[in-house]
Amino acid sequence: MTFRVAVAGASGYAGGEILRLLAAHPEVEIGALTGHSSAGRPLGAVQPQLSSLAGRALVPTTADALAGHDVVFLALPHGQSAALAGEVGGSALIVDCGADFRLRDPVAWERFYGSPHAGTWPYGLPELPGARAGLWGTRRIAVPGCYPTAVTLALFPGYAAGLLEPEAVIVAASGTSGAGRSLKPQLLGSEVMGSMAPYGVGGGHRHTPELVQNLSDAAGESVTVSFTPTLAPMSRGILATCSARLRPGAEADELRAAYEKAFAAEPFVTLLPPGLWPATSAVVGSNSAHVQLAVDENAGRLIAVSAIDNLTKGTAGGAVQSMNIALGLPETLGLPMNGVAP
Amino acid sequence: MTFRVAVAGASGYAGGEILRLLAAHPEVEIGALTGHSSAGRPLGAVQPQLSSLAGRALVPTTADALAGHDVVFLALPHGQSAALAGEVGGSALIVDCGADFRLRDPVAWERFYGSPHAGTWPYGLPELPGARAGLWGTRRIAVPGCYPTAVTLALFPGYAAGLLEPEAVIVAASGTSGAGRSLKPQLLGSEVMGSMAPYGVGGGHRHTPELVQNLSDAAGESVTVSFTPTLAPMSRGILATCSARLRPGAEADELRAAYEKAFAAEPFVTLLPPGLWPATSAVVGSNSAHVQLAVDENAGRLIAVSAIDNLTKGTAGGAVQSMNIALGLPETLGLPMNGVAP
Amino acid sequence: MTFRVAVAGASGYAGGEILRLLAAHPEVEIGALTGHSSAGRPLGAVQPQLSSLAGRALVPTTADALAGHDVVFLALPHGQSAALAGEVGGSALIVDCGADFRLRDPVAWERFYGSPHAGTWPYGLPELPGARAGLWGTRRIAVPGCYPTAVTLALFPGYAAGLLEPEAVIVAASGTSGAGRSLKPQLLGSEVMGSMAPYGVGGGHRHTPELVQNLSDAAGESVTVSFTPTLAPMSRGILATCSARLRPGAEADELRAAYEKAFAAEPFVTLLPPGLWPATSAVVGSNSAHVQLAVDENAGRLIAVSAIDNLTKGTAGGAVQSMNIALGLPETLGLPMNGVAP
Amino acid sequence: MTFRVAVAGASGYAGGEILRLLAAHPEVEIGALTGHSSAGRPLGAVQPQLSSLAGRALVPTTADALAGHDVVFLALPHGQSAALAGEVGGSALIVDCGADFRLRDPVAWERFYGSPHAGTWPYGLPELPGARAGLWGTRRIAVPGCYPTAVTLALFPGYAAGLLEPEAVIVAASGTSGAGRSLKPQLLGSEVMGSMAPYGVGGGHRHTPELVQNLSDAAGESVTVSFTPTLAPMSRGILATCSARLRPGAEADELRAAYEKAFAAEPFVTLLPPGLWPATSAVVGSNSAHVQLAVDENAGRLIAVSAIDNLTKGTAGGAVQSMNIALGLPETLGLPMNGVAP
Repeated sequence: MTFRVAVAGASGYAGGEILRLLAAHPEVEIGALTGHSSAGRPLGAVQPQLSSLAGRALVPTTADALAGHDVVFLALPHGQSAALAGEVGGSALIVDCGADFRLRDPVAWERFYGSPHAGTWPYGLPELPGARAGLWGTRRIAVPGCYPTAVTLALFPGYAAGLLEPEAVIVAASGTSGAGRSLKPQLLGSEVMGSMAPYGVGGGHRHTPELVQNLSDAAGESVTVSFTPTLAPMSRGILATCSARLRPGAEADELRAAYEKAFAAEPFVTLLPPGLWPATSAVVGSNSAHVQLAVDENAGRLIAVSAIDNLTKGTAGGAVQSMNIALGLPETLGLPMNGVAP
Repeated sequence: MTFRVAVAGASGYAGGEILRLLAAHPEVEIGALTGHSSAGRPLGAVQPQLSSLAGRALVPTTADALAGHDVVFLALPHGQSAALAGEVGGSALIVDCGADFRLRDPVAWERFYGSPHAGTWPYGLPELPGARAGLWGTRRIAVPGCYPTAVTLALFPGYAAGLLEPEAVIVAASGTSGAGRSLKPQLLGSEVMGSMAPYGVGGGHRHTPELVQNLSDAAGESVTVSFTPTLAPMSRGILATCSARLRPGAEADELRAAYEKAFAAEPFVTLLPPGLWPATSAVVGSNSAHVQLAVDENAGRLIAVSAIDNLTKGTAGGAVQSMNIALGLPETLGLPMNGVAP
Repeated sequence: MTFRVAVAGASGYAGGEILRLLAAHPEVEIGALTGHSSAGRPLGAVQPQLSSLAGRALVPTTADALAGHDVVFLALPHGQSAALAGEVGGSALIVDCGADFRLRDPVAWERFYGSPHAGTWPYGLPELPGARAGLWGTRRIAVPGCYPTAVTLALFPGYAAGLLEPEAVIVAASGTSGAGRSLKPQLLGSEVMGSMAPYGVGGGHRHTPELVQNLSDAAGESVTVSFTPTLAPMSRGILATCSARLRPGAEADELRAAYEKAFAAEPFVTLLPPGLWPATSAVVGSNSAHVQLAVDENAGRLIAVSAIDNLTKGTAGGAVQSMNIALGLPETLGLPMNGVAP
Repeated sequence: MTFRVAVAGASGYAGGEILRLLAAHPEVEIGALTGHSSAGRPLGAVQPQLSSLAGRALVPTTADALAGHDVVFLALPHGQSAALAGEVGGSALIVDCGADFRLRDPVAWERFYGSPHAGTWPYGLPELPGARAGLWGTRRIAVPGCYPTAVTLALFPGYAAGLLEPEAVIVAASGTSGAGRSLKPQLLGSEVMGSMAPYGVGGGHRHTPELVQNLSDAAGESVTVSFTPTLAPMSRGILATCSARLRPGAEADELRAAYEKAFAAEPFVTLLPPGLWPATSAVVGSNSAHVQLAVDENAGRLIAVSAIDNLTKGTAGGAVQSMNIALGLPETLGLPMNGVAP
């Protein structure tokens, strides 16, 4: 059985990655592809890497164009999904790669996004305890943000095991594709090559409330998060370096055991063997996350590090993984586990 | 039906890419993996990107280890394949990613490689006229060099159509993975990032006689080649900028027609629409080649440009594509057509 | 004696590099700095690397703002210098980093730039035979284009010595800063990192007529040029790979002797010792050019390669070098000879 | 008056940067240059960026070679300086860029370096309170490590003002030149380009005790440090993201005032205006440090970020700055304040 799939926002980086994965997915037929300023152009002119779909035409993003599909992916700027999702309606599975339906707290939503809260959909991070149950058969999926995917995988086992103080300090480095195809001077190649720089410092990044939500859920108490994202001179990848004080009495081997248990059955998360540390290159183009941890006895802290491809596991791959679950397909179908390296 | 496959040299860049492709190939079962200094280590320690095979052990490279497989890939330093291939013998399909069996001219071989010529095997560039016939059912395949793959695809249609003077000038830029995992100062990240540099200037690069062989075959006469490779600050990709004078009377539209005809039925070669030019990023991780051409009326020259991923279409992908043909499988089986970009 | 200097276009990449050099120049006092959309902002907000000038204000680009200076640098988009230069007038030394006054042939100008020809100023490539004489005491300087600087240095000695056929084939790789700070999708970091791509293929690049002019001047006859620029994943640097057939009877040692003679007394051009080849990293941030050559006996061609920093020797450094000559200062004053590497 | 200077370890990255700076220093004459495996070769063969010194010969590293100079820079692997310094002796100013004389605590030294403690020399971070007094007229200087330079500048004003809890969490990204020219697979361009990865996680990096020493000195109490270094895909630069809880009652404006006061008179440290954040590109090739801070009210933490060039302010520039002070020269003499960007 084949599912007919539409992609809204097919001209962006997330949309392109969704299509790269869907083109290799055995149970999917690619239907409408929509764009904004690129509508009317062939896909090959804006996504030259999609050789197998180069001749497909982009049409304007309307509910009509998206109607009549089994699955609709929304890869739109934050705040545009809610209205469109309402119009598309029907029985289609709608997978929103934007932020609109991720947060449960309307106050947090309005503070960080400045618009009315649209609601909350099942959260597409299957590795979280209980998350798969919420995805089976669902018709609506909120795909996590890229940073929250990386950070949550690095920290939730420690919080779920009750081994960490509720105060996390996170510094993450992202490739530039995380900022999308926006024409800003600081995203020009001349500016980013050879340079590392922070942004949204001091708690202002919009992924912060999502991090708080995920880690607090895992801990069963409110977790304070200090989150500093940095822009790294690479196209893809997130390296999240996360730390928290150990609860009194918590031991390094308890922590390792908690992580081993959390990821033992996960097809897309590798807890690396001792001595190996994640590198973003090892997961580029794949839906895999690599995780490693260490306890700094002197500082009394856990340091947990994860690496993902922000466009794959962090967006499009996570979306397809959740789609597979919702549609009753094998969870790993059509998803690469091995990275493109070196 | 599943073919059991061994990979000799699984710890190198080419070997890793072969395994990335084989792990996603539906008709293949991965058998022995051999290495040299890495023998005894788990694959995950040297190829961290291969999450799905991380626990597999590397064994020493011997004929015994390679025995009993349907297919054996050799991804070894140049000059080591011939001896090992002789020992393996038997009915296995041997796919040599090294140079040992590419050249027909023993004099050229000895001049560029300094050892006795081992022979010539069917050449694994299926896009060349007549090449597929030589690959059907074969038990031996010589995989082309990465530069020869890129350059030959860019120029052979013009030569085959008799439209070009037999004197080609080629400047190609390669990512650093083309040099393998050798520990040389000039390959350190600190040296290559932010830098372009030529090497092997003046005709000394070992791929030169292979270029001469391919272009001369296409032209039906001896073609002189000036080839300058350069090292570019990227891990993967070859951009080949190739030019030759037009024969008197040759017209731009004849050339375009020759290229359209040459690639019309090719699944892995895209002649880009007018106005679009190849970029290596668009083919990274894929088995696709992108080609475009222009005629400089003022200079009286054709400029043809191709982009490939040196490790995929330029090595491992080309090898698997030829394996598919030799085994009677669909030629595109298990091979990605779309690049990992941005 | 100190010269008071204004910079029009101080917010661009060329303007920033001019200021970096002038800030370290012992005989210069920095006066007015003008910008377009950045007028009114402090320099530090648009050129954060200029720590020593961070508080200086940018003012709108007008003739009034530029009046009253001993030297005025124009770092403006092509076609804007001529009008402004006319208004500034007076006895100031005007150094134009744009193309407006480089070409002698009005037909070539109009064909490539599409506007009326404004005239021709003394050409600021002091290494060319006779060029210094034209710069002594001049009040007007046309700074060469970045590609013409690199290519001319690589080829003029061979042409001046009468050893080369009048048909040059050039492939050059440039860092992205050569395209300036323009907000184009293909210049985004996500697109350029990890990618090589050509542009302006087939003779369309605006630097082509300048190359023809320089090489024809050196040869004393009309030289045909095939020029293909490529964009490389680095911020700075040009590597020009240039070739031409040897004249009958021309020998490799004659060529080397011609290059040695041409550069023996040049402070900023290093003909590398045999066996070493230029790398752009070795000249980043410096006003040096590195040159090397080889003769491919089989192909009958000279391959000459040069490396420069497109913003320093290719623009701002060449401009200051020429300014020094025009003002009667030591030619090397304030100009770095050593690159910032690794 | 001119000082005659020798450089031991002139073939490494630190040695090359020292020479780049010395070559532009008006009061210095470059004497003996020593190397290990490169002894006997011309400098241009190993440091091609040093065009002005290309013909200088490298000699073996011996006390004899270094004798008879006014200043001797040691840019050697950690642990080699102490013995050599003892042999050179005499009245020369010895500037050690290694770690041998940085730590006061023999126990910490032996734990992290595994050899007997050689002693402690005046510490070459002039921006630290009281540090300049220790450098005036000294004959021995211990140049700080690159990470400690970046981190200390980011945090000491807050600690010195008594506004921060004594528990710092630091994540820093470094360019690959920080690892020197060592031939390790993980430093190959193919591995580092497009990749971020941590190392020395959990307190194991050798710069940790130096961080503890500096921050504890500033705080007047023992400060616990959690330090995670990461390798970034760039040649140069350190971005240090540092955080600590605010002491009860500490306010954001007090913190800003403390930083303003600490750096008001510092020629090489720029506290950026509000809204601008450090980027490593802005300081490449310069002796400048850029610092910015924010208070995350929700997390109750200061986030302070600094950017330096690890080879310049982080090694060679800091060394020359301290040399200037020791010799009674103007502190900024010969040191670039402006970065090479874009």
